[in-house]
Amino acid sequence: MPDIDDVRAAAARIAPFVHHTPVLTSTSLDEWLGVHAFLKAEHLQRTGAFKYRGATNAVQSLTATQAARGVAAHSSGNHAAALALAARTRGIPGYVVMPDTVPAVKRDAVVAFGATITPCENTPESRAETLAEVVERTGAVEIHPFDNDQVIAGAGTAALELMEQIPGLDIVIAPVGGGGLLSGTSIAVHGVSPETRVLGGEPLRADDAARSLATGTLQPPLPPTTIADGLLTGLSERTFTILREHVEQVVTVTEEDIVAAMLMIWERAKQVIEPSAAVAVAATRAAHLGGARVGIILSGGNVSFPVAGRPA
Amino acid sequence: MPDIDDVRAAAARIAPFVHHTPVLTSTSLDEWLGVHAFLKAEHLQRTGAFKYRGATNAVQSLTATQAARGVAAHSSGNHAAALALAARTRGIPGYVVMPDTVPAVKRDAVVAFGATITPCENTPESRAETLAEVVERTGAVEIHPFDNDQVIAGAGTAALELMEQIPGLDIVIAPVGGGGLLSGTSIAVHGVSPETRVLGGEPLRADDAARSLATGTLQPPLPPTTIADGLLTGLSERTFTILREHVEQVVTVTEEDIVAAMLMIWERAKQVIEPSAAVAVAATRAAHLGGARVGIILSGGNVSFPVAGRPA
Repeated sequence: MPDIDDVRAAAARIAPFVHHTPVLTSTSLDEWLGVHAFLKAEHLQRTGAFKYRGATNAVQSLTATQAARGVAAHSSGNHAAALALAARTRGIPGYVVMPDTVPAVKRDAVVAFGATITPCENTPESRAETLAEVVERTGAVEIHPFDNDQVIAGAGTAALELMEQIPGLDIVIAPVGGGGLLSGTSIAVHGVSPETRVLGGEPLRADDAARSLATGTLQPPLPPTTIADGLLTGLSERTFTILREHVEQVVTVTEEDIVAAMLMIWERAKQVIEPSAAVAVAATRAAHLGGARVGIILSGGNVSFPVAGRPA
Repeated sequence: MPDIDDVRAAAARIAPFVHHTPVLTSTSLDEWLGVHAFLKAEHLQRTGAFKYRGATNAVQSLTATQAARGVAAHSSGNHAAALALAARTRGIPGYVVMPDTVPAVKRDAVVAFGATITPCENTPESRAETLAEVVERTGAVEIHPFDNDQVIAGAGTAALELMEQIPGLDIVIAPVGGGGLLSGTSIAVHGVSPETRVLGGEPLRADDAARSLATGTLQPPLPPTTIADGLLTGLSERTFTILREHVEQVVTVTEEDIVAAMLMIWERAKQVIEPSAAVAVAATRAAHLGGARVGIILSGGNVSFPVAGRPA
């Protein structure tokens, strides 16, 4: 399992490549949330999401020999673009397995970063089989989107920065899907400040992490149906183990909560965040944290706005 | 006419009340625009628009006797909220004349800031008559949204900050409606750096400023029909005179240009700006400024997103 030293090492390793993102505040948001909120703006990270930190740490950690034949992953979301740019930055091939159902805008981003897309069916089995074929054929190293110590340590660097930017936070909260961000966040926060509470935010319609922590047993994800499409995945044994050690509670929120929080951030803070990031904001409100100083990881901002006359 | 000393005095006067807004950059935006763009983030200003600077300067410039009976304006847009908050901040009454057709969200903002709304018909005559009645009845001082030296000087403080934040800009560009922002911007820019070029951006469908500067004669606005609803107004003699002295050209852009620029800022820079602000971005692209260092005033970010199930 990664520890705070791994997060610090990751921060040093990725510093030349990633943005040191700002922390944003909003008076009207504070009134709405009932806390003093400090928004760690990972939607302003390169590729529009915190995922670039973990992908960069994993790619830059490879030896030259390991890296030479490239890196590969299956992803229909932010990990795909993050890995593509991380590979291009190191000057090695990137391979992404994506279902045909992924919107053109997301495929275009991966292609623009120079990665090769291999299409697959939109099933877990097809993704895994297609990725195995790609790895077999190319010799690329698989970089899992969250079940990977380097990816987790890289993800934790956002919270490490936040703890340096805003000392004395009472609580830090991050969204949870596969658990990579929340794992890295919790390791970083407790490595710097053991007394700071770490919470997760999760859609009620994809609440396997909340159920896993509540029961003490890793619960499989039920078929999720949430607008927060970055949080559809279930925990791994690795992330579950980390969360059990560091995370006090995972707060679940409804779809209506998520949309309301997203609109608050769009319309009041004037920041474009994606629904998955809004989950952490919604959870902050739902948890009734009464005046606490709360750090919120805005995990990403990749949204396509439907506009009349523009192809999807 | 206000000069650079007035802008500097305004900056000192309003400093305790306004946000010193950041300057944002985006690599992908630079590629799209073909310039090095520095975005002055007035959408992050209080009330979500640069208008708060001018309203605050005007309100804070009043003597105690003048201020005591309050301030008044007609506005269906950002000046309404700006004046309402500026009045509340000084502890005096605010009066806003607004047509009934204004969306509830805009009325709510004015009411939340403690101002009194007087409804009117959606015609220039009704607005002027209703405002005259309010001023007559209350003794409030009218604060015009742009045809006012203090408002212009206050608006110019955004560009003054920008010139301090990013020295050596080749060009500064701002949107033009009534011309208050572009007037203040041009005075500030040339007061600091006479060699920096100042351009305006204007919707082709509301192009009275472009026609006025091109012909050298103040042209009346034709009935405008643009998505950039902050730029419907025509110039005044005051703003026309300032623009003739300081502004090299007003670049016109189509509605499609405006929407494309707005989506670039939303989706790539992850910043919520309103169509009027996007006009300056679109004009930067349309002007083909080849590698120049360009400051762009993002004038505001007040957008209501239509979401299923939410009242308008």
